[in-house]
Amino acid sequence: MASLLLKGRLALELPKINQALAHACKELPLSVQPVAEHIFAAGGKRLRPFLTLLTARLLGYTQEDIYTLAISLEMLHAATLLHDDIIDQAPLRRGQPAAHTCFPLNTTILAGDALLAAGNALVATFNDPQLSLCFSKATTMTCAGEITEIAHQHDPDLSEASYLEIIRGKTAFLISCACTMGAIVAKAPEEQVKACTSFGENIGLAFQLVDDALDFAPESVTGKPSGGDLREGKLTPPLRYYQQSLSTQARQEFDAAFRTGTFSPQECQDIAHAIHAQGFMQTTRDCANTYLSQALEALLPLPQRPEKDLLKAMAEYVRDRTK
Amino acid sequence: MASLLLKGRLALELPKINQALAHACKELPLSVQPVAEHIFAAGGKRLRPFLTLLTARLLGYTQEDIYTLAISLEMLHAATLLHDDIIDQAPLRRGQPAAHTCFPLNTTILAGDALLAAGNALVATFNDPQLSLCFSKATTMTCAGEITEIAHQHDPDLSEASYLEIIRGKTAFLISCACTMGAIVAKAPEEQVKACTSFGENIGLAFQLVDDALDFAPESVTGKPSGGDLREGKLTPPLRYYQQSLSTQARQEFDAAFRTGTFSPQECQDIAHAIHAQGFMQTTRDCANTYLSQALEALLPLPQRPEKDLLKAMAEYVRDRTK
Repeated sequence: MASLLLKGRLALELPKINQALAHACKELPLSVQPVAEHIFAAGGKRLRPFLTLLTARLLGYTQEDIYTLAISLEMLHAATLLHDDIIDQAPLRRGQPAAHTCFPLNTTILAGDALLAAGNALVATFNDPQLSLCFSKATTMTCAGEITEIAHQHDPDLSEASYLEIIRGKTAFLISCACTMGAIVAKAPEEQVKACTSFGENIGLAFQLVDDALDFAPESVTGKPSGGDLREGKLTPPLRYYQQSLSTQARQEFDAAFRTGTFSPQECQDIAHAIHAQGFMQTTRDCANTYLSQALEALLPLPQRPEKDLLKAMAEYVRDRTK
Repeated sequence: MASLLLKGRLALELPKINQALAHACKELPLSVQPVAEHIFAAGGKRLRPFLTLLTARLLGYTQEDIYTLAISLEMLHAATLLHDDIIDQAPLRRGQPAAHTCFPLNTTILAGDALLAAGNALVATFNDPQLSLCFSKATTMTCAGEITEIAHQHDPDLSEASYLEIIRGKTAFLISCACTMGAIVAKAPEEQVKACTSFGENIGLAFQLVDDALDFAPESVTGKPSGGDLREGKLTPPLRYYQQSLSTQARQEFDAAFRTGTFSPQECQDIAHAIHAQGFMQTTRDCANTYLSQALEALLPLPQRPEKDLLKAMAEYVRDRTK
């Protein structure tokens, strides 16, 4: 029921969000417009804009310029995806060829910079230093998370705490900011702003955990090759649970191959299969559910309006998504 | 005399500017700190921080936190240098190995992103939307200027107007913003803010024109190989004057080689020599002087304080610099 309502609202809002994005792309320097259009055309859930929109509306902001604010973090998000795919040498993004495989490297780097600058400029037009501070913190934290992740790539000793620090930075902070900005623009009292921030952070952590679980789902379900994180040397929870389940000898072998990134395709497949068979994807999802409970709890001080149910439905969507 | 005063003030302020930069670097994610320290250690004139400082002090701002604001645009500037050197595949920056030749590509890209984000965050702490808007416009314009420059690389038909659009974006806007931000933080009346913006823009245009002239000065003087812009396919004024001095036949040959970037080392040397001998460096400097006169004129509505003479001395420094 809630999910149907969410779908309905999404169907209503998505065209406006995409229209605002298209409009913002037209303001970019001419030569990077195709790169920006490429990454937005490849899809994406528009989770962040939708969260800004819902929190703002929930807290009584009625103006139409909310779509401009809502897309600012999506532009920052797209900017980081462009740079990340260069850094990871990723061939695909959202099932489409990654931008740097279709456009020259320099245009792709600069398109990222231009999107970041443009997102920042959109926020600045709202003339509220709190919003600008929030956006700039999101940029810093996302960047720091990505940097920490790279520093720990192929590190079989990555602790759970460091993993959480990484995903808090690279994923949760931006999603959290999307909610915070909705509350700030609505001039909500501080308690409600904090509630939105906490909701967003918990949703964000859960989102990434589910993402990490889904990385081991079969390609036939997700449309992405299974086990990408294993090949990229990212010790996500399903992999850590698997690693911890091994005998001393087997673990030493796993750690050595993880360090050097030398798993054969067959080994990758076997590990993905073991993770599936031993329920480590579900253990990861259970962990996500803990954060989702905290997200729902964070909603308590917020007013009872239709958007509150939609935010709850967002939590369910994060919980249930299968690709 | 004015230049001595300027040197004295610089000697007094430079340690504080560099201290603020060092402090800001320490706040960056650990793994990109060495990249940031590398680019700041390589030197740089700190022209932008000094302009923010002087305009703010001229207009009555006395607080010590001005150093924090002053370095924000230097961080943005460093971020663009990091990305530009990757894009241009430049081996050197400020006579030192460029960052991307000492650090991995991904760390260098991310260090640029982190510096941009951190600069943005520093400005946001001043809690003034006008400052944030100014910073974000500087980011957008610098990026757009760089993009337009790349789009016109190896274009022998680049018009003077397009050239001006490029340098306005890639150089003048940031220098102009440095002055504008000093005026804004001092809460100067709009007429004075505009005067500072205009001063900065004209200084910035002149600075780039002198830079373009110096590109053809002998390496023994500047410490940089002569004629870099010719090899990179940038039709700067000295080159355009040279191109326009050619016979139809010679120009067709020049244009063809410029388009394909296939000048031999001997041809590069001959062209640099001709530019020198025919006074095209001086013609370019004359053009810079026109902008410098406009910069001085822009200072008229500003109060008569010691910093005003220092700003005039800055204009003289830009006019007279030989490397």
